Amino acid sequence: MPSSTITDPADPQAMGPPFAVSLGDPAGIGPEIVAKSWVMREARGLPPFFAVGDAASLRAVWLGPVQTVSTPEEAADVFDTALPCLQVADAGDIMPGTPSIDGARTAFQALEVAVGLARSGSAAGIVTAPVGKEQLYGVGFTHPGQTEFIAERCGVAPHNAVMMLAGPSLKVVPITIHIPLADVPSVLTIDLIRARAITTAKGLQRNFGIGRPRLVVAGLNPHAGEGGALGREEIDIIRPAVESLQAEGYDITGPLAADTLFHIRARETYDAALCMYHDQALIPIKTLNFDEGVNITLGLPIVRTSPDHGTAFGIAGQDSANPGAMMAAIRMAAEAARARLTPGC
Amino acid sequence: MPSSTITDPADPQAMGPPFAVSLGDPAGIGPEIVAKSWVMREARGLPPFFAVGDAASLRAVWLGPVQTVSTPEEAADVFDTALPCLQVADAGDIMPGTPSIDGARTAFQALEVAVGLARSGSAAGIVTAPVGKEQLYGVGFTHPGQTEFIAERCGVAPHNAVMMLAGPSLKVVPITIHIPLADVPSVLTIDLIRARAITTAKGLQRNFGIGRPRLVVAGLNPHAGEGGALGREEIDIIRPAVESLQAEGYDITGPLAADTLFHIRARETYDAALCMYHDQALIPIKTLNFDEGVNITLGLPIVRTSPDHGTAFGIAGQDSANPGAMMAAIRMAAEAARARLTPGC
Repeated sequence: MPSSTITDPADPQAMGPPFAVSLGDPAGIGPEIVAKSWVMREARGLPPFFAVGDAASLRAVWLGPVQTVSTPEEAADVFDTALPCLQVADAGDIMPGTPSIDGARTAFQALEVAVGLARSGSAAGIVTAPVGKEQLYGVGFTHPGQTEFIAERCGVAPHNAVMMLAGPSLKVVPITIHIPLADVPSVLTIDLIRARAITTAKGLQRNFGIGRPRLVVAGLNPHAGEGGALGREEIDIIRPAVESLQAEGYDITGPLAADTLFHIRARETYDAALCMYHDQALIPIKTLNFDEGVNITLGLPIVRTSPDHGTAFGIAGQDSANPGAMMAAIRMAAEAARARLTPGC
Repeated sequence: MPSSTITDPADPQAMGPPFAVSLGDPAGIGPEIVAKSWVMREARGLPPFFAVGDAASLRAVWLGPVQTVSTPEEAADVFDTALPCLQVADAGDIMPGTPSIDGARTAFQALEVAVGLARSGSAAGIVTAPVGKEQLYGVGFTHPGQTEFIAERCGVAPHNAVMMLAGPSLKVVPITIHIPLADVPSVLTIDLIRARAITTAKGLQRNFGIGRPRLVVAGLNPHAGEGGALGREEIDIIRPAVESLQAEGYDITGPLAADTLFHIRARETYDAALCMYHDQALIPIKTLNFDEGVNITLGLPIVRTSPDHGTAFGIAGQDSANPGAMMAAIRMAAEAARARLTPGC
C-alpha cells in the first residue's frame, strides 16, 4: 500500500512521500497552473509535490525557481525553496498554445512515470494536468483518456475505474459519460448502475473517510418519469437497481427528479449523486464549482485526482490560467491519501 | 392592448389595473403563498393584485384580512388594507393537502376568469398558482397544462406559447419539455429550434425590454458532440438552425457545450439559453434559483407568470410554504407589463 508510507494520519503536516503532478501537454496550461500552485503552497495548505515532465515547459511560462530532481526524496527536500521537477524527457522547442509531437511524447511519458511512482509507493498519489488527446493519439496512445491508461497500469478493468467530479459543495458520478445522448437509454442497465454505485460508495469511504455514504440516484426522464408517463427507465432499470442495493444495506435513494436534486438544501441530504449521463452530472457541478472542480478516480489502488478542465491551448502562455482547480486537485489528493490510512477504509 | 391601461411607464408606482392571481388548487399551497405575498407587498415592492378563487381557501390557512370583491377596480381600492379576492366559486369543504372535485372546479374557473380579465384589460396580467393536473383532468380539463389552456384562450397555437424559466441570475427555455429523454433526439428539428428561438428573442424584447437579446443554444450531446464524435445532432440540426438565424440578424450563438454554459462568467454573456430538453434547462435554473424561479410564458398577447413549483399538497396548511417564487412571479409580471409599454416592444 503506497499510503502506508505516510506516517502520521492525525497530523496533516506529517511528511509522507510527496505527490507526483504530471505536467500534461507542455504547450497547454498545465505547467503554468502547477507553477502557480507551488507559489500558493503555503496559503492553500498544499502538501509537498513535484512536477513530472520537462522542466523547460515550466521555465517557458514562469520565472520562479525550478529545480530538476531525480527522485521523489530529492523533490521533498527542495520543495520549500523551489518547484521540483522530475525530468522525464526533452519536449523540444516549447511554444505555449502550439502542441507538438515531442510535447505529446513528454506528456505520455510523464503520466507513465507518475503512475509508476505512485504504484511503488514513492509518490503518495498522482495529480494529472490536462493532455491533448488528439496529440496523444498521434504518438501511439491507445486509451480513450488518462483515466483508462492509469486503470490499466494499476491492473483495474477500465469500467471499474469510476470518474467522480467533486467540488466544495457537490460530488457527482456520471454513470455513462462520453457517448451520444441518444445512446444513453440503451446503455443503462441494472448491472451498470449497481457497479457504479458500489464503486462510488467504496470510493467515498476510502478517499473521503465517509463511513456510511449516502447516495442519491437521478432519474433519466423529466420528473424521474412521472410514474411511467414520461419514460419507463426509472421503473424498469433504475428503481430495481436502487432497491437491490438497499436490500444489501446501502444507504441509497432514488430515482429522484434531477432538476430538484442540486439546490443547496437538497445537496445537504447526500454525499454523492449518481447521474445517468454526462451533462446531468456536469451541468450542476460546473454551474456551482466551475473554478475548483476536481476529477477523482474511484476504484484504483492509488490516489489519482486531476483538475476538471482541459489543456486550454487558447490561453496557454498568457499568464491568465486559473490554478484553482489544480490546487483543489492537489489538496483533494492529500485528503484522499490521509483518508486511506483510516482503519477500515 | 391590456397594457395600455397602465398609465406611466416611467413611474413604477404608477397605478394601472391590478394583477389577477389565480389561487390554483385550493388544497395546495397556492392560497398560503398568495396571502404571504400580500403581507410582504410593501417590503418586496409588489404591484396591486387580487386573488381569484374561493376566499374560504385563504381563510382556511391564514388569519389575515381577506375581502371579497366583485371587480378589479374594487380590488385596487381595498389592496392596501386587505387581500382582495374575486370570488368565482364555492370550493366546498377545504382540507389543505387533500384535493377535491369541488376544489378542482374552482381552480379551473379561477384560471378562466383570470385570463378573461387580462384579455379584456381589466387585469394588467395574470399570475397562476399551481394546480393539480390529475384533479383538473377529473373535471373536464383537456389541456396538458395551464399554459396550453391560456394560449388557447388567447388565440395562440399551443406550440407558439413558450415556457421560459427565469431567475435572478439565469433565463432558460427548454426546446422540448415533458417527453421521455429517449424521444428528444427525434423530436428536435431545425424548424422547432428556429421557432423557439424567435419567440424567445421577441419575448425578451416585449417582457424584459431587452432591445437586442443575446441568445445561446446548448448542444444536445456531451461537449456539444465534439465535432460529430459524440453525436451528430449539433451538425445536422442545431448548427443549421443557429446559422440561419444569424443570417437573419439574430444575436445567437451555438451549439455550445451545456456543462460550461451556466457558471457565473458564462451567464454574463447572454440573456437567455435555449436548451434541448427538460433537465438541461431545469437543472441549472433550479440549482441556482430554487426558491425564486418564475415560469413566464412568451408568445402571448397577455402577461402571464407563475411560480416554478407545484401544489405541494404534502406541506399545504402547515404554514411552511415559501412564498419566494410567488412574489418573484408577481414582481416579474409587473416588470413585463411595464416593458410592454416601451415603444417598439
